[in-house]
Amino acid sequence: MTEPYKIIEVKESVFADNDREAARLRAQLKQDRTFLLNLMSSPGSGKTTTLLRTLETLKDELRIGVMEADIDSDVDAKTIADAGVKSIQLHTGGMCHLDAGMTEQGLKEIGTKNLDLVVLENVGNLVCPAEFDTGAVKNAMILSVPEGHDKPLKYPLIFTVCDALIINKIDVLPYFDFDMEKVVKYAHMRNPKLKIFPLSAKTGEGVDDWCGWLRKQVHEWND
Amino acid sequence: MTEPYKIIEVKESVFADNDREAARLRAQLKQDRTFLLNLMSSPGSGKTTTLLRTLETLKDELRIGVMEADIDSDVDAKTIADAGVKSIQLHTGGMCHLDAGMTEQGLKEIGTKNLDLVVLENVGNLVCPAEFDTGAVKNAMILSVPEGHDKPLKYPLIFTVCDALIINKIDVLPYFDFDMEKVVKYAHMRNPKLKIFPLSAKTGEGVDDWCGWLRKQVHEWND
Repeated sequence: MTEPYKIIEVKESVFADNDREAARLRAQLKQDRTFLLNLMSSPGSGKTTTLLRTLETLKDELRIGVMEADIDSDVDAKTIADAGVKSIQLHTGGMCHLDAGMTEQGLKEIGTKNLDLVVLENVGNLVCPAEFDTGAVKNAMILSVPEGHDKPLKYPLIFTVCDALIINKIDVLPYFDFDMEKVVKYAHMRNPKLKIFPLSAKTGEGVDDWCGWLRKQVHEWND
Repeated sequence: MTEPYKIIEVKESVFADNDREAARLRAQLKQDRTFLLNLMSSPGSGKTTTLLRTLETLKDELRIGVMEADIDSDVDAKTIADAGVKSIQLHTGGMCHLDAGMTEQGLKEIGTKNLDLVVLENVGNLVCPAEFDTGAVKNAMILSVPEGHDKPLKYPLIFTVCDALIINKIDVLPYFDFDMEKVVKYAHMRNPKLKIFPLSAKTGEGVDDWCGWLRKQVHEWND
């Protein structure tokens, strides 16, 4: 039996200058009218569940593909494929992040010409993925309520390089000592332009606002 | 006003062979009768809170020091110092992990001769810290309930290199789709010898079992 998605072993980039490679990839995406979103977070913050909600909202109006990057396993690509969306699994062979060259290997496999939006679900890590421009048009990150409101203080770079911050799992706010005002203040200290979307991928609350922002970005890039 | 803890900027190790450096450091710790615990986890899994509970339980019988490693901020060292325990903050200057050389720089500052137990709270990350032997006598990691039971499938190495796995935040089990049987099965697939301690650092449930294990390790090493 063949799986409904491919597993690609991506190799560390041979390009010495990742920033130049990323810029080249972005220019190619512009020409193909494909928007690439780089989605980052800690392990377990709900990237895949948030993505499922996003696909549910946008899949009838946009042609979407998903690249799931993980060190190992293919549970995420399977979940996305089961939801009826084109997906591939990228295995990084122990690497803790994706660079532009690795992202390009994935894009070649999934094929961008007939896709309006490709979401790259980066390796779960708040540190290393933030250091490498993947060639994405926009970067988004998820911080979930159980992780705590102090994360912008401890992991500054990822908050600086992101355009949007999703605060996930707001349905469990009553059970955690999480201060929404503080997290917004700390995140804006790192990046005053950061758009912040509190939501619950579980209940669906707040998902429309996030999808509205994403839809607008995709149209601005592709039109 | 001086803070009750030092902040040390640790530099990437100059040693080509981290494993040899780690072994050398461990031999030194044996001679000093100091047990070094390397504590790893994702951001927000509750390393500092678990540590506070552990200190509460053990600080009257063991002389303990804590090294808090972070890319930035000193909130954790402050929290530990406020609890009356000797602590220092290690800043990694953007590095996503500590190696043996960096750990040794911290140990020199905190001083091991009069300490029975030093806990190194590594940078919050399930990937990179697992790749570097810090010279610790034992490695422990925390996985918290909101992160999900599939993490041993996605981040295999850290489960393989750890001696103990703390499953934290069991007080919120009713609000999450977390399968304790599955996580134990997946974790033991990676490492059959892994000791697993479900606990809640918030309520204190299960903390005694974890502290019992740690106490025994410290005595076996130091006696």
